[in-house]
Amino acid sequence: MARLVMKFGGTSVADINRIKEVARRVKAEADAGNQIAVVVSAMAGTTNQLVQWTGEIATIQDAREYDTVVSTGEQITAGLLSLALQDLGVSARSWMGWQLPIQTDGAHGSARILKIDGDEVTKRFGDGQVAVLPGFQGVSPENRLTTLGRGGSDTSAVALAAALGADRCDIYTDVEGVFTCDPRIVAKARKLDKITYEEMLEMASQGAKVLQTRSVEMAMNHGVRVQVLSSFSNAPGTLVVDEEEIVEQEVVSGIAYSRDEAKITLLGVEDRPGVAAGIFGPLADASINVDMIVQNISEDERRTDLTFTVTEADLSRAVEVVEKARAADGIGYETLLSDADVVKVSVIGVGMRSHAGVALRMFRTLAENSINIQVISTSEIKVSVLIAEKYTELALRALHTAYDLDAE
Amino acid sequence: MARLVMKFGGTSVADINRIKEVARRVKAEADAGNQIAVVVSAMAGTTNQLVQWTGEIATIQDAREYDTVVSTGEQITAGLLSLALQDLGVSARSWMGWQLPIQTDGAHGSARILKIDGDEVTKRFGDGQVAVLPGFQGVSPENRLTTLGRGGSDTSAVALAAALGADRCDIYTDVEGVFTCDPRIVAKARKLDKITYEEMLEMASQGAKVLQTRSVEMAMNHGVRVQVLSSFSNAPGTLVVDEEEIVEQEVVSGIAYSRDEAKITLLGVEDRPGVAAGIFGPLADASINVDMIVQNISEDERRTDLTFTVTEADLSRAVEVVEKARAADGIGYETLLSDADVVKVSVIGVGMRSHAGVALRMFRTLAENSINIQVISTSEIKVSVLIAEKYTELALRALHTAYDLDAE
Repeated sequence: MARLVMKFGGTSVADINRIKEVARRVKAEADAGNQIAVVVSAMAGTTNQLVQWTGEIATIQDAREYDTVVSTGEQITAGLLSLALQDLGVSARSWMGWQLPIQTDGAHGSARILKIDGDEVTKRFGDGQVAVLPGFQGVSPENRLTTLGRGGSDTSAVALAAALGADRCDIYTDVEGVFTCDPRIVAKARKLDKITYEEMLEMASQGAKVLQTRSVEMAMNHGVRVQVLSSFSNAPGTLVVDEEEIVEQEVVSGIAYSRDEAKITLLGVEDRPGVAAGIFGPLADASINVDMIVQNISEDERRTDLTFTVTEADLSRAVEVVEKARAADGIGYETLLSDADVVKVSVIGVGMRSHAGVALRMFRTLAENSINIQVISTSEIKVSVLIAEKYTELALRALHTAYDLDAE
Repeated sequence: MARLVMKFGGTSVADINRIKEVARRVKAEADAGNQIAVVVSAMAGTTNQLVQWTGEIATIQDAREYDTVVSTGEQITAGLLSLALQDLGVSARSWMGWQLPIQTDGAHGSARILKIDGDEVTKRFGDGQVAVLPGFQGVSPENRLTTLGRGGSDTSAVALAAALGADRCDIYTDVEGVFTCDPRIVAKARKLDKITYEEMLEMASQGAKVLQTRSVEMAMNHGVRVQVLSSFSNAPGTLVVDEEEIVEQEVVSGIAYSRDEAKITLLGVEDRPGVAAGIFGPLADASINVDMIVQNISEDERRTDLTFTVTEADLSRAVEVVEKARAADGIGYETLLSDADVVKVSVIGVGMRSHAGVALRMFRTLAENSINIQVISTSEIKVSVLIAEKYTELALRALHTAYDLDAE
């Protein structure tokens, strides 16, 4: 007997028949003697429709009312799944975020979970009752509905698993697990049986859309074992676990990429203290996230070149902020160049901590394919490079082979 | 300055543009210095979609989960209208049924309102804030979402008006008020400026679909002045008020009809004590509402004929129940006849209390048009007859003229 949290995303509950299929999966786990809490997303498309309405009705959004509207999608699915379970003879009831309660802070639209009271749900496990919870939602200290931001249902599920002391949190989605690389690009990509939290975090934040970053952080912090698997098949998925659980660790576990990158280069920047703060301060004030930063050594001792990346969506705003800073604060540079046609490719693996030469192999492989590296950034378990977007497929396939990740 | 409850039905909030139009109406009332609470229905079609889903997903319904699903429609509209009001510069916030709270009993799917706590809303009236409430929903003693049954938003609005001590409850709909008769059938029908609660109750329960019967009962019990008016025009509507408020009372205020009637006639019923109970007891046990009942005098002293009406939907079940009672309990009758092609036409007016001859004029008018009366039933302020359905239009138009109701 195990205590499980099962989470189903929007495509897994896209229509009535899919919800019935989810009910059958839940019943199978319950019939096996497990204690089950289910977390559901909104039916695919529902949240988009709700968000669109809020955009059409008003230009400036009161995030509290926005949350009142967009949290309804998950409420509908939770009620419907409870009905479907009961129809199969499974005792089940839905628990809204405000009923349990799932307490969050008051940051409407992107609230953080503070505390989940799982007592009543745990008590009812003893009577064999399945709990069905809407993901993505909670209740603020002012007793108003909150939402956790897009993809927040993963976070709901992991937080619930932590609160209930669950043995595992199964995240059902439309892919069969975490792959060594995007299978749509690299045909030889393999599904990983296991991956560490740290790697999953890098994979998630580097653009692998399987799990929401915040949910992985939370799983790591609370030691929640997470499994990513498909609700469209019966194949086992990928377990996200502590490093100790993985006996034979590969040097490199996977290769992630993100096209949502843009590069800004400032040529001829004055090389004196305070210049970096003069540029990145205004960007931070404008809530623009800067990812990679590289400062080149210049031949002219008093001048240097500075390159950094932002998301594509932020590019035009970032350019505006920097040019304004130059005019207002006298931040000196000669030329500003921007480029949205770039991709960030990352090689990820906890094994590289103890293995030298991982970065070198990346650089050599790209060079052999005549791919120019524009920016490099590294962390303990990751090497990322920025290259021209047109080389995405070529780079991913070459690297996948170079690190011996190809399926046989 | 007045305190108003404004209620908007599904067609009045059918899409984003309609909700914006509602916001403009609310703003106009607020700008005039009034204190406003708004009650909204779900966007037209939404509740039907939700009900359909619950029907598709499970054969037997847990009414608590049903309520969780179908109460979302009003929640969406309440959030969207609050956003629309804010966009026009009006201070507004939504209040879910569980937040206010609107306390109901635990009869999920058809709950009754027990108590509304209007303190917080009243306090915020002082700051000029408009309260926006989802109709149709409340919260049970077990802290679960409840719904009031179809059309329950009218009841929400009247109950809120009573709780807030509102000067008036304006029910915005897609017709301009209460008419002397259905204008789709009787072209000369006139909109009534005023109508008494008692008359409105008869009109509503006799098939005029303008206001939900329960909301009229509640308005009468709490002395809430109700106005029925159109959200698609600026014409004044119909005021539903106490009899004393109407100075010149017409003898007959309106003519209602209901096609949702079916007739069962039992020929040759044994004329002895206990027979009626033997027939109507089992019908009541099966939750079948019997409306009109007539027992004819028979020539044979020990035999009589019994005729009664039920809704069309209940007809086949009613026939079954009666036949079973005959077989099981020995209720003696010779023949059972049933007929669904009937219509009930009712002449309504508090003035008939003090005027003789109202019923006679009805019978004479129908006779002049060769329409046979099958059943008659009367109350203090109403005369109803059952006639063949094919005569509906003819009867309504003739009666409308006979009672001097035609517009000039």
